[in-house]
Parts: sequence; structure tokens; C-alpha cells
Amino acid sequence: MREKIGFIGLGAMGAPIAGNLLAAGHALRVFNRTPEKTKPLVERGAEAVKTLAEASEPGGVVFTMVTDDAALHDIVASDGFLERLRGGVHVSMSTVTPKAARAAAKRHADAGSDYVAAPVFGRPQAAAEKQLWVCLSGEAGPRDRVRPLLSDVGRGTSDFGDDPGAANVVKLCGNFMLAASIEMMAEAWTLAAKNGLEPEEIAKFFGETLFSAPALKNYGATVAAKRWSPPGFRLALGLKDLELVLATSREAKAPMPFASLLRDRLLAGVARGRGDLDWSALAMGAAEDAGLP
Amino acid sequence: MREKIGFIGLGAMGAPIAGNLLAAGHALRVFNRTPEKTKPLVERGAEAVKTLAEASEPGGVVFTMVTDDAALHDIVASDGFLERLRGGVHVSMSTVTPKAARAAAKRHADAGSDYVAAPVFGRPQAAAEKQLWVCLSGEAGPRDRVRPLLSDVGRGTSDFGDDPGAANVVKLCGNFMLAASIEMMAEAWTLAAKNGLEPEEIAKFFGETLFSAPALKNYGATVAAKRWSPPGFRLALGLKDLELVLATSREAKAPMPFASLLRDRLLAGVARGRGDLDWSALAMGAAEDAGLP
Amino acid sequence: MREKIGFIGLGAMGAPIAGNLLAAGHALRVFNRTPEKTKPLVERGAEAVKTLAEASEPGGVVFTMVTDDAALHDIVASDGFLERLRGGVHVSMSTVTPKAARAAAKRHADAGSDYVAAPVFGRPQAAAEKQLWVCLSGEAGPRDRVRPLLSDVGRGTSDFGDDPGAANVVKLCGNFMLAASIEMMAEAWTLAAKNGLEPEEIAKFFGETLFSAPALKNYGATVAAKRWSPPGFRLALGLKDLELVLATSREAKAPMPFASLLRDRLLAGVARGRGDLDWSALAMGAAEDAGLP
Amino acid sequence: MREKIGFIGLGAMGAPIAGNLLAAGHALRVFNRTPEKTKPLVERGAEAVKTLAEASEPGGVVFTMVTDDAALHDIVASDGFLERLRGGVHVSMSTVTPKAARAAAKRHADAGSDYVAAPVFGRPQAAAEKQLWVCLSGEAGPRDRVRPLLSDVGRGTSDFGDDPGAANVVKLCGNFMLAASIEMMAEAWTLAAKNGLEPEEIAKFFGETLFSAPALKNYGATVAAKRWSPPGFRLALGLKDLELVLATSREAKAPMPFASLLRDRLLAGVARGRGDLDWSALAMGAAEDAGLP
Repeated sequence: MREKIGFIGLGAMGAPIAGNLLAAGHALRVFNRTPEKTKPLVERGAEAVKTLAEASEPGGVVFTMVTDDAALHDIVASDGFLERLRGGVHVSMSTVTPKAARAAAKRHADAGSDYVAAPVFGRPQAAAEKQLWVCLSGEAGPRDRVRPLLSDVGRGTSDFGDDPGAANVVKLCGNFMLAASIEMMAEAWTLAAKNGLEPEEIAKFFGETLFSAPALKNYGATVAAKRWSPPGFRLALGLKDLELVLATSREAKAPMPFASLLRDRLLAGVARGRGDLDWSALAMGAAEDAGLP
Repeated sequence: MREKIGFIGLGAMGAPIAGNLLAAGHALRVFNRTPEKTKPLVERGAEAVKTLAEASEPGGVVFTMVTDDAALHDIVASDGFLERLRGGVHVSMSTVTPKAARAAAKRHADAGSDYVAAPVFGRPQAAAEKQLWVCLSGEAGPRDRVRPLLSDVGRGTSDFGDDPGAANVVKLCGNFMLAASIEMMAEAWTLAAKNGLEPEEIAKFFGETLFSAPALKNYGATVAAKRWSPPGFRLALGLKDLELVLATSREAKAPMPFASLLRDRLLAGVARGRGDLDWSALAMGAAEDAGLP
Repeated sequence: MREKIGFIGLGAMGAPIAGNLLAAGHALRVFNRTPEKTKPLVERGAEAVKTLAEASEPGGVVFTMVTDDAALHDIVASDGFLERLRGGVHVSMSTVTPKAARAAAKRHADAGSDYVAAPVFGRPQAAAEKQLWVCLSGEAGPRDRVRPLLSDVGRGTSDFGDDPGAANVVKLCGNFMLAASIEMMAEAWTLAAKNGLEPEEIAKFFGETLFSAPALKNYGATVAAKRWSPPGFRLALGLKDLELVLATSREAKAPMPFASLLRDRLLAGVARGRGDLDWSALAMGAAEDAGLP
Repeated sequence: MREKIGFIGLGAMGAPIAGNLLAAGHALRVFNRTPEKTKPLVERGAEAVKTLAEASEPGGVVFTMVTDDAALHDIVASDGFLERLRGGVHVSMSTVTPKAARAAAKRHADAGSDYVAAPVFGRPQAAAEKQLWVCLSGEAGPRDRVRPLLSDVGRGTSDFGDDPGAANVVKLCGNFMLAASIEMMAEAWTLAAKNGLEPEEIAKFFGETLFSAPALKNYGATVAAKRWSPPGFRLALGLKDLELVLATSREAKAPMPFASLLRDRLLAGVARGRGDLDWSALAMGAAEDAGLP
């Protein structure tokens, strides 16, 4: 018989991931700050609980997918959460700093439970289609325990060892590189446009030759077509992630000039009221600086 | 019977391209400033000529592959070159600015010949293996005429229309994006390294998932392994190309902050005596700024 | 009769400021985390107290000069501090974010006391010589009350109105501009040096003509002479201040590309083990990138 | 009797400088590409000449004040110019690269005349009021010869030795630092404005304390008041000067990240149609990125 799993945080990413766990046959206890978001899952058989602590059971597994370091901290510090989880494993899928992950892991260890980091790459649609890439790190035992569960929500799990912060470093590197790719294509397509070329044509060329990776292909086409809406990943969240990258850069004493520039581009986007567009709208900066409409 | 083609500029890229034209059965007249570089081709049947003008014949096709705007200008302005080419086509494969290409095309038109831009993507080894990507632009007639020849030197030719500068814009965009990719991976791998992760592992992960394009995969592994030598493309030439990108950015009134930063990284590389390493050694900047050896 | 003033934080800046209050005839209660630092002031008549709360008296005035937002927060939140200060004024001289200042002011108001921001410009020697510039902001009444005291520690007090965060914004702007001035002179002197000129000569020329402000003159000469030690203001603290600038930039949605670049320069300085040099050593970045020793 | 001096280039700066030479009692031969600009000086006694060469006389002194490297080169290369100047001195006041200055000096030496660089700091009004700062470099003999003449057009001449490029390096450093000062104040005033402070008030405070140099005071007030028109120095010319700075940076192998950023700001200004505003309008970039109107 499959065990009952807890799932906290049913946002754009959490909901489809929890759905896949259900679909894989796991029993689920779900919690969300806004309770109505639990309904679709309850209709499919999940049990909605009223407190964070109730989401888990002694020795069990609880997933969390929340916004930032502070939200993760609030869960870990919430009444009874760590006490109830004793002997269990917390699978933390949120994009947080390695520092926050390490601190959370320490608290779990002190309380007799385990914490593994399992942030994911992919947008909500990829989550729904079980096409996420999962990055995993933390103690070996709990990693082994949760790996089968992770295979139910993504197409592959990559293991980054014992440091609970490691998977978060990888996740932040990835988001940084996606943002950098968007900016570099924005500058290139703008240069092309101002020389009379069609950005779509350039995007197609590079997407089929040198830069034929799916992420680059998709963002390249998005930037060329200026399709900022509906957002796959909101610009305001992109800014938050770049702030996490820079906080980690500061902590690690590793200057990242591209990241600094991207943070300024995203901050300008938010200042100009574009926080709810897709984060690829950071490309508007390069276009506007070139006098394009 | 195949026509006799001229080929000027037998450097690291020109020599293997000319070799492939020979191998495809074309008769070749070759010219190089340092004449001994013509020998291997002469041994395979090419005819070495003593002046730039002699490389072409009236109504014929002449390829050039030289270092920069100035070198291209010197060929076009050289004694008898345009006169002798009358009715023929100049296939200019060099990485030059669109401005230089447009000026050269104008001079050819005035002299009764044609100029098409055909810069290529790929390193010397790709050239030797006929794996180059060719970008083509210029008047339609001459483009049609030279396309079959280009299929003898690369794996694909992409057509960018009538503007003789267009293909050069694409080429410069590509080199800019390669440099940007190197920098972004350098910053990411450095952040990972200072968090105790193995850059090779991270490079492998991203090369198989989000950033699975060949160029990114190769440069990602190169940066992780710090393999700057032997150079596939010298850092000093990379700096030259970024200067061409910025000159084009200036001309087109399209600010490119990433390109500005890359220019400074490459310039620092040259200032520190790294001009003869592979241009991916621009990655040393991020590592050194983080206090890594 | 003069009132008894509390003074918390006897570091490089706090000690000479407290000394000037004593010299002006005020009775002083002093507190420092490392108690021995109170000795020189006790010998001159100050009273050392054992807790933060004891530094103040009901309705009295207490000065604080500490490292950062967290240290200020710890004082305000410490046992009995706000209770004991009721009816009094907290003169906060620390370089903190406007956000921290506003939060602290709110807590004081809730507890029936006042908080004014009074950060200062000047190095320890200027503090000793009563040559500080004081920026003042907060409620009008308490501002009027403390202005005479501030005239005992500086050569001038500038008033920035009711917002308790305003004076901190000015202070952060000033430190940002000093760092920017150092970098701009570092780049200029490096360009001059690599053209065979003497940086000292250039520094002298500009210090007497276009850039004849004392701060620029001094830093210009320091950068030219590479006098990073002893530190007037440690590079690690400079990095902390730039982080405060960027946190304020983020909060206010005002991108600051120069500040981002300075943060990276200072972070590189710390990464390379220069945190204890003077912060003008950020100038080493420009010189090293140019291949200078 | 005073000698007859040639003066070529009667633009916004050249005209008042030539006027001061006249006022000091010198006889003047003047040349300008648009001849009508010679009229006001001819009315005051100058002689207008029809060719560049005629502006000088054998063994005489000729001043030039033109736009850029190309314009200077055109004068030096013009028919009969060097031949006629034999034994004389060319006082080159234009803002050009040190490379152009060194090349011009070489040509003069080869032709038996001398070239000294004498670029100036100050806007047209300062020129009219004889308040320019002159930077002088070149061979010692000719420097001694022209120094008295320079004292008729400025308030001080600073000597930078034998290298004819040296004075131009100093001039470019100065213009770079002015642009950097504008940007740093733009960022600071924007941060202040978004925190509810009055930029004018902040500008006044810093202009009277830390940054009390005239240039900073004036530009600080200009940026605060957004007074971009009429232009004292056009933004398009500012861009040209930053390009000269970066060309010199490239030549000297001295990366200048602030200069790169300023170039992008100015280029964005031109792209947005602000080339005819004062160059302090580069400050609009920081304000707009913060969402200010």
C-alpha cells in the first residue's frame, strides 16, 4: 500500500505536481493558505487539512512548494510542524536560497526529521505534463526514500549530493541563465531589427542551429514575437529569483555582473508596471533603449 | 565543366574551406599574403597566383576569408581587383561589419560585379568536416549562383535576403551570443564552485536538460574544465569581433549592455596576456573576481 | 543644568562623537557590547552602564551608532529599552536603510517615544575634530530638541524633514556617490597610467580644477598613490553600505546600474581578501583588469 | 609686433577662443568650412582665408578646433597645409584620441613643423569669458612658444609633458568623469525622489558639502531641475566623446566598465531622439528605468 503524503502550497506549480502524485496513486493530505485551491484535488480524492502541521504524519513525507525563503521559514517554524514530522522527510521544492535550505535542514535534523531540497525546472504546463526536471540534494537516506515519488512528478531527477543547499544552487544557476539568455537574445534581435531584419527569422535560424536547446528556442521566439502575456512565469517572480541569485552571490563571495544587470532590467520592468507580464518582457528594456516602440 | 574559382585568405578557416572546394571538384586559384600557405592546396591541384587581382577571372567567382573590415577593404581597393572581376561575384566569408559589407557591395555594383556576404559559423575543425553553417545575403541573382558552391563547404546555407549587410548582422549576433553564453556559464559555474559543487557536474546537467544545444554543451564543458588551450578561436579575435558588434550597435543606435560587458572582459583578457588562449578564457574573469585561483 | 545623555555603540565613529558630547559639558551614560571600550570615556567622567535599557532615562535622549539594520533592531527590541525611554528621543546615527529607520520610528511612536535619524558624513578623524556633516530627519519636535546636541558633534546639521527614513536616504546616496567617484577615478587614472602619464599628476590637476571638492581630492590622491592602508573606512563595510543602497533601490523600484557595478567591485575585493583595506582599494579592480600589477 | 595667427574651426568653442586671441591684440587669419561664420571676426579685424593652407604662414602658429579625429586628419592631410606650415606650430585644441594626436605629431615632425595638443575644459560661455582650463603637451620648444598665447584664451594652462597624446588623455579622462558624475547623481537623485525627497534639496546639500566642486554643483542642479535645454554640450557630442574614451581604452588595454555603461546611456539617448539636448539628459535613463515620467 502506498503511504499518505502531505502537500503544502497549491499555487501555479504546486497544484499540478500534487495532481500528478494523486494520479500516480498516492493518498494526499493537502494544505493551502487560500483553502479553496484545495477543492479540485479534494474532488479527486485528496484530504484537505486545516493546519500546516496536519499535512504531515509521523515518519511520513511532506512536500512543500512556496514562494520564497520567508514562506519556507514560516512553515518550518509553524506550530507543531516539526514535532509532528518527527522521523519523516520534508521534500522542499521551492526556489529558495541555499542558505535558507541549509538552515531548514539543520532545524529538521535537530528535531529528528529530514529535509531534502527538490527544486524543479519547468513551467506550470510542464508540471501538468510530468515534464519537470527535478534537482535533488540532502542526506542520502531520505534522498533514496523520496526518489521514487519524484519520478511521479517529473521526467528526470538529478542528484547533487549531501548538501541540502546544492540543489537550490543549481536551480538558481538555471534561472539566472534563462534570464541571461532572454537578455542576450533581446539585444541580438534588437540589433537585427534595427538593421532591417525580421527577429522571427533570426530566432528561427539560431533555434535550429547554434542555440537549438528547447529553452532558448522558446524564449527566442517569444522575444521575437513580443508575446509577454499570458505569463508563464511572472516578471515580479523573476525579479525575486534574481534577488535570490544575488543574495547567494553575496554569501558565496562570487560577483556576477550579468546577474546584476538582469536584476536592474527586471527591477525597471516592475517599476514600469510590468510585474504581471511574463518575465521574458525584460526584453523590452533593450528594445526601448534602442528607440523601438 | 566546373568553373575556376578564386580563393583569397588561407588562414585557419580559409584553408579548410578552400580544401573542400577542391575536394568537390572545383578548379581553384589561390592567393595568400604569406605565400607558403598556398602550398598544401597547390599540391592538391590549386594554382597559386601572385596578386589579388589574378585570383579572379572576368565573370568568375572569388571567395575571400580575411580578418577584418580593413583587410576586406584592402582587397576591394587593390590594384585591378574590381576591374578584373567585372561580371563576376565576390563571395565574402569574413566576419566584418554590415557597414563594411554594404560599402563593398556598393563598390562592386559601381564596377559592374556583385558582392554577396557569406559569413560562417563553426570552428576550423567544423570547416574541415564541412559542418559549417553559412549565412548568405546580397542580390538574388548572385545568391542563386553561389548557393551550390556554398553547399560544398557547409552543412546548410541560410538565406537572409537582399541586404549585403544582413548576413553579417546575423554572424555578429551569433558571436555575441556565444560570448554571452560563455560569460553566463562562467558566472554560474563559479557560483556553484564556491558552494562546493563540481562545475563539470553542473555543466553536464544543463547540457543535457535546459541548455542542450551543442554550442552551449561544448563551451559549458570547456569552462568547467578550464581548457583554454589549444585555442579553437583566439581570445584576441573574440575581442575584435565584440568590437565589431559594438561598432554595429553604435551605427544602428541599439545599446547592448551585455556586449559592453563582454568587450571589457575580453579586453581584460588581452591586457593580462591571454590573447592567444581560446576566447572561452574570458571565463577566468568571473572566477578571479570570486577569489578562485 | 545639562541633561544626562545616553550613548550606545563606541566603535571607530561612536567613541569620538561621544567624546565630543562629553567635551561639550554633557553628562554621559555609555554602553558598548565590548565593555572595555567604555574605559577612556569613563576616565573622562562618563558613567558605564550594563544594559542597553540603562543607557537612557525616562524622557531623556539616547544616541546610538551601530553597524547595520540588524544591530539597530536588536537595540530597539532589547529588554526594557523602549519602556525606559518613554517620552524621550532616540538619536540614531547609524547607516541603516530608510526602511529600518521607518520601522524603528513606528515602534518608538507606539511606545510613546521619538526616533530621529541623524547619520553623519566623515571619517573617524573628522568625528574627533567635530568636522562631521549631520543629516537629520524625523518628527519636528524631537528634531528641534536634539539639534543643539548635534551642533556639539559636527560642523553642520542639514534638515531633511519629517520622514525618519529621509536622512538615511541622503546618507546612502552620499556613500554611493563616494564609491562611484573612487571607481571613476580608478578607471581614469588607469587609462592615464597606461598612456604613460603619472596618476598623481592627473589627480592633482583634476583636484585643483573640475573636481576640486575635498572628498574627490582626497580619494583621487589616495587612488593615485595606492594608499589602501591603514583603512579610513574598511572595504567590507563599504560592501555592506552598497548592499544597503541596493536594498533601498529594490524597495524604491529605482534601478542603479553604477551601484550594481560597485557592489560587484567591492564583493570581488572581499573575495580576494581585501576586506580590511580602505574601501578605496576597490580601485584595484580597474588596475588589475588593465594588467597592471 | 605680435605675429599673425591662423585659426581654423569657428564652431561653438572655436569662435569665442579666436575672439579672445583677437581681443588680446593678435592679428588673425581665420578659416571655417561654412564661411559666413568668419564674419563676426572679420568685422573685428580678422582676415578670412579661402583654404586651410592659407590659414598659416611659414614658421607661424595655427590653431585648430574641430569635431573629431577625422576632421583633424582632413586638415593635416589637406593640400599644402603641412608644406606651408614648415617651421611653424600647430596648436590642436580639438578633443581627439591620443592616437590621432600622436599620428598627427609624427606627420608634422616629418614635414619639419611642430604639433602640440592643447584641448580645453569649459563650455562655450567659459570660452567667451576666458575661463577655460587648457591642457598642453608636445615637444618642449613649441610648448614654450605657444604658452603665452594660451594664457590669452584660458585661466590656466597645465603642462603634461612631451607626449603629444598626453593632453588628450587628460581631456578624455575629464569628459568621462563628468559623464560619470552626471550618471551617479542621476541615480542618487532618482533614489531620493522615489523616497519622497526633493532632488533639488539633495543636490544643494551635496553641492555644499562633500561634492562642492563647481562641475558637480552645476550638473547636480541641472539634473535635479531636468534642465536639458538649451544644450551647453550636445548629447550627440557627448556620445562621440565617450566613443573616443572607449577607443583609447581599447588601444591602451584598460577596460572601463563605467565608460561602457555611459556609452550605452548616451547611445540610448540618441536612439530616443535626444541628441540635441544637453548631454546631462543622459540622466533621463535612470529616471525612466525607475518608472518616473
